[in-house]
Amino acid sequence: MRFYKVHGLGNDFILVDLFNQEWPPGEDLPAAARRLCHRQFGIGADGLVLIQPSRQADVHMRIINADGSEAEMCGNAIRCVAKYLYERGGMHREEIRVETGAGVMIPRLLTEGGKVKAVRVDMGPPRLERREIPMIGPPGKVVNEPLVLDGQTFYITAVSMGNPHCVLFVPDVEQVDLGGLGPGLEKHPFFPRKTNVEFVQVLNDGEVKVRVWERGAGPTLACGTGACATTVACVLNNHTGRSVHVHLPGGTLFIEWAADGHLYMTGPAEEVFCGEIPCEQTTC
Amino acid sequence: MRFYKVHGLGNDFILVDLFNQEWPPGEDLPAAARRLCHRQFGIGADGLVLIQPSRQADVHMRIINADGSEAEMCGNAIRCVAKYLYERGGMHREEIRVETGAGVMIPRLLTEGGKVKAVRVDMGPPRLERREIPMIGPPGKVVNEPLVLDGQTFYITAVSMGNPHCVLFVPDVEQVDLGGLGPGLEKHPFFPRKTNVEFVQVLNDGEVKVRVWERGAGPTLACGTGACATTVACVLNNHTGRSVHVHLPGGTLFIEWAADGHLYMTGPAEEVFCGEIPCEQTTC
Repeated sequence: MRFYKVHGLGNDFILVDLFNQEWPPGEDLPAAARRLCHRQFGIGADGLVLIQPSRQADVHMRIINADGSEAEMCGNAIRCVAKYLYERGGMHREEIRVETGAGVMIPRLLTEGGKVKAVRVDMGPPRLERREIPMIGPPGKVVNEPLVLDGQTFYITAVSMGNPHCVLFVPDVEQVDLGGLGPGLEKHPFFPRKTNVEFVQVLNDGEVKVRVWERGAGPTLACGTGACATTVACVLNNHTGRSVHVHLPGGTLFIEWAADGHLYMTGPAEEVFCGEIPCEQTTC
Repeated sequence: MRFYKVHGLGNDFILVDLFNQEWPPGEDLPAAARRLCHRQFGIGADGLVLIQPSRQADVHMRIINADGSEAEMCGNAIRCVAKYLYERGGMHREEIRVETGAGVMIPRLLTEGGKVKAVRVDMGPPRLERREIPMIGPPGKVVNEPLVLDGQTFYITAVSMGNPHCVLFVPDVEQVDLGGLGPGLEKHPFFPRKTNVEFVQVLNDGEVKVRVWERGAGPTLACGTGACATTVACVLNNHTGRSVHVHLPGGTLFIEWAADGHLYMTGPAEEVFCGEIPCEQTTC
């Protein structure tokens, strides 16, 4: 099987193009993702990304996390997929339509000399109704609401970007015990499909610093949908304006909550290497 | 640059064969190792292994750790190199001579159907004189000697297998605070070239359980020279016989301290995938 190793701000993926090769027959997808994403015994990545034919769009993107669970959508992965399709897949267009578990997304490519420098993605509108997160409780939005975990009360804002996010504002993200709080919030019984968790420190009206606990993947260097959810939560809580530079451990994303109600995310995507597993070549 | 990703019991390496390609000119080796070994932004590995021509042996193996430091020798890496040379490098011999920073080593291949099932490596004799470790202090061996770190006294046995090892016996390796104690012992002022650290739990006369803090790499799943040093320390302290199954987090190595004074290590080696960085292919 041929693959490309790619990353968006250090959130890294094994990209497998199923237009020009078949998925190995009998290979169970969650088990394969766990095996391939293992950092020592496999290729190593946060997730496995499959590019398949689609009936509604140019391609269908599927994301299987390192733990075998499937993600509806991932902002970092879709930038990498768009770059790959432009540079390697023969799709020399400014916009590419990508079917995801959260609907059809349309990344817009910012190119220079035949290479993709950044990708702007229309991430769609946020969903804020509690049942749309999904989160258990009475109807309405979840903005700065108390949530109790192990006897401690947290004030959370819940946002769905196709996948669930639980955003918490803190005075200093470096002081957050991510490994201690992340799993408990991810699996809190109020989130029936579990949740991503963002700890956010507001720097000024247009800049925030974020650490993310990603559902099924743990602490990651960056999360695109998390940066969007963060911006929505910042606006709902009157912490920032509608255009925000979101600083993540892996780098910075520029997020705009536009007048049309949609979130637009602009950020880089990188290809690191290509590979073959197992290696079928007899000479090297 | 073409490479193979390989591992011995989960101790994983980026293997680059410089017989059939040149190292990129101007590419600084320690900086390249740090970049390539990064798990998100690079290929990801515990170390970079170069296979080069040698004037004294069949090949010269160089190991650059993930932090850019160079290792004289690594038992897991040499098994992977031997397997590669047999299966991919056209060296269809039972024994291959490998020049290392700790002298010429001679791995012996245990094959089945053209594939290498395990590799037995003559790791040479241990060196026990304190200045040969090297360790600061009066002449003589270092067997069950007190060493003070942050006010706490540890009883250590020091063994050189070409590289320095500091072996400590503990009642239960699972209870050891590896991340807390490892760096302090590795960089203890008594070890002028720093040291690898092995925490050892004796199970019976022929079996031990070990957790390793590898110099320049941190906690690793397995360390071949560490398993040899462990066996020597076990014999010197009358904990086991001279043939020991050493259980490491990544799997088991069989170590014999033979009558000729040499250590012989038998264990597996695996190839995971091959790759190209950067990917020069225009189609995929």
